[in-house]
Amino acid sequence: MFTSTDYAFMAHALRLAEKGLYSTAPNPHVGCVLTQNDQIIGSGWHEKAGQLHAEINALASATEKTRGATAYITLEPCSHYGRTPPCVNALIDAGIAKVIIAMEDPNPIVCGRGCALLEQAGITVQTGLLQAQAQALNIGFITRMTHRRPWVRLKTAISLDGKTALNNGVSQWITGEAARYDGHRWRARSCAIVTGIGTVKSDNPQLSVRHIETARQPRKVIVDSHLTIPLNAKLLQSDNELLIFSACDGGLKKKNALSSMGAQVFTIPNTEGSVDLNKMMAILADLEINEVLVEAGRELNGALIEAGLVDEMIFYLAPHLLGDDARGMIKLPELTCLEQKKELKIQDVRMIGQDIRIIARLSSHLS
Amino acid sequence: MFTSTDYAFMAHALRLAEKGLYSTAPNPHVGCVLTQNDQIIGSGWHEKAGQLHAEINALASATEKTRGATAYITLEPCSHYGRTPPCVNALIDAGIAKVIIAMEDPNPIVCGRGCALLEQAGITVQTGLLQAQAQALNIGFITRMTHRRPWVRLKTAISLDGKTALNNGVSQWITGEAARYDGHRWRARSCAIVTGIGTVKSDNPQLSVRHIETARQPRKVIVDSHLTIPLNAKLLQSDNELLIFSACDGGLKKKNALSSMGAQVFTIPNTEGSVDLNKMMAILADLEINEVLVEAGRELNGALIEAGLVDEMIFYLAPHLLGDDARGMIKLPELTCLEQKKELKIQDVRMIGQDIRIIARLSSHLS
Repeated sequence: MFTSTDYAFMAHALRLAEKGLYSTAPNPHVGCVLTQNDQIIGSGWHEKAGQLHAEINALASATEKTRGATAYITLEPCSHYGRTPPCVNALIDAGIAKVIIAMEDPNPIVCGRGCALLEQAGITVQTGLLQAQAQALNIGFITRMTHRRPWVRLKTAISLDGKTALNNGVSQWITGEAARYDGHRWRARSCAIVTGIGTVKSDNPQLSVRHIETARQPRKVIVDSHLTIPLNAKLLQSDNELLIFSACDGGLKKKNALSSMGAQVFTIPNTEGSVDLNKMMAILADLEINEVLVEAGRELNGALIEAGLVDEMIFYLAPHLLGDDARGMIKLPELTCLEQKKELKIQDVRMIGQDIRIIARLSSHLS
Repeated sequence: MFTSTDYAFMAHALRLAEKGLYSTAPNPHVGCVLTQNDQIIGSGWHEKAGQLHAEINALASATEKTRGATAYITLEPCSHYGRTPPCVNALIDAGIAKVIIAMEDPNPIVCGRGCALLEQAGITVQTGLLQAQAQALNIGFITRMTHRRPWVRLKTAISLDGKTALNNGVSQWITGEAARYDGHRWRARSCAIVTGIGTVKSDNPQLSVRHIETARQPRKVIVDSHLTIPLNAKLLQSDNELLIFSACDGGLKKKNALSSMGAQVFTIPNTEGSVDLNKMMAILADLEINEVLVEAGRELNGALIEAGLVDEMIFYLAPHLLGDDARGMIKLPELTCLEQKKELKIQDVRMIGQDIRIIARLSSHLS
């Protein structure tokens, strides 16, 4: 159904879409290529929410007439008035003859509406070209639209025997510089970084994107059941948006102090007196957070995995051994048979400097 | 100095040498290729101790006259009368004009003597072609000759969070079938499999080579400080040679019972009342054991690593999580700063079925 040139043009559109990886959120990453007689006459991508969509940028860039052209778009064009007018209208007005789409709009309420309007205007529409690649690029946006929660990625840096820190808490640094820089790329594409109060107290991290260029810093999220965060924590000194999820009120004074420092505090206890992690993820989705990166210790790691809230894990395995007395990465209830193990599906294995990076998905994950 | 055809012929000789991987021990793996005018006229490899050496097999297979031929040999030819006459004489008698050798004899006492005798007979001798590959093939033999101990490989099957078994001891199976079969290939090339009494009691293993063809079973070695091995252990029922290293006499009756079942018991306590692992390795070397595969639990793993007796580790990482309550792989004294970590050098990373196999060397290792 699709020709090899179709594949090449859509692959090009996907590469354009990827340029927005660190900037388009909460909007999806979208690219568009326009062709006449299998020659590119225009292209564009969506750079930032509030700015023009990929299709409009592509039409504006066209070097020849667009009447009769083919448009390759990585995501079904919008049909509604948002911050910008609907792209469907622009494509119809430009006289586009054929639209090839990688994936339909993931929002179940509007999915297919853009395609239907194009077809009603006499435009040939084909969907599904390089769909898996397009979905991978917008995995957070899709998860938020379809499950009302972000795509949750958990990052961990461990020795080859699975240890994140010595028994005395020392953990800087388990992995090498190349792996730590790679970690900043995952931060940059995330809308929020989540950590636990234990990590705040022991490492006092900034959780900001450094070492790579980005126009935007992810929001910071702390799970702090008893609201014991020290007021001199680095995360409170920063200009970045800080969300604290707690299970108790922690005293009005503390709450006011945190608010005056710019932190937003959510009190959402579950029945066991801890933070209701499911509710937290729903709140993050409502705040238009697509991808979350968890950088926490074994308690929060374990609680999130146990709650079925982790979709993907990134392991950086450092080439050394720390021994059994060192700290492990995941606190889970004790297993009594191997069938209870948390199964993973390996997605990618590669060397990053001297360390090994493994990307895996939890088989309990969404989709 | 070497031509591309030299490389090709030596690579061929190395592939022939590798055919003896499961059979030549305690002898080294050696291959030989004979050429006239860059055409192969004969080839051979050493199959089994007591049988003919690679050079003799190659000369016997020659389809043309050997006068003026070049011999590619992966190891310096022997110059002494052992179970067979010296290969140096055979090469001289055959009128070989040139001998290219990958590596010299690792035995410091005889190293270079073969080359010298060849040169005295007017033969051109070149050494060092694909030397690293030849050394890798005979790493156990070399270690035994140069350090009076075997090359020690430690195999472990762990979950991605570094666990070998559940807290209740259940460990069958952490990894998948493909990884377990791969493990049998490492057993087959080893002269001995070493385990601890804890593993004997909890898993009652056979430690034999299964699933792949081999003419020979490795010897079995148990570290059993207090000589508490149950007399119904599978390892005692087998015909394979069994060595038990102990730190106490354990009663004459037990020792006699073990001897009558064919086990050899060595009593070599160290000052702390455990088995003297350094002495154990020296004894294994004296028994002509080239490569050892350790398949043990965290106590013996840790003791061997701490003693600096592990050269190489093979990790099979299974794609799942078992959580912090499960059993770790290495018991080491608690570290207080990261500089104390046991550093590894990654040699190889690949998928074996659904599992990831990592081969790494301890930087404390020999050479």
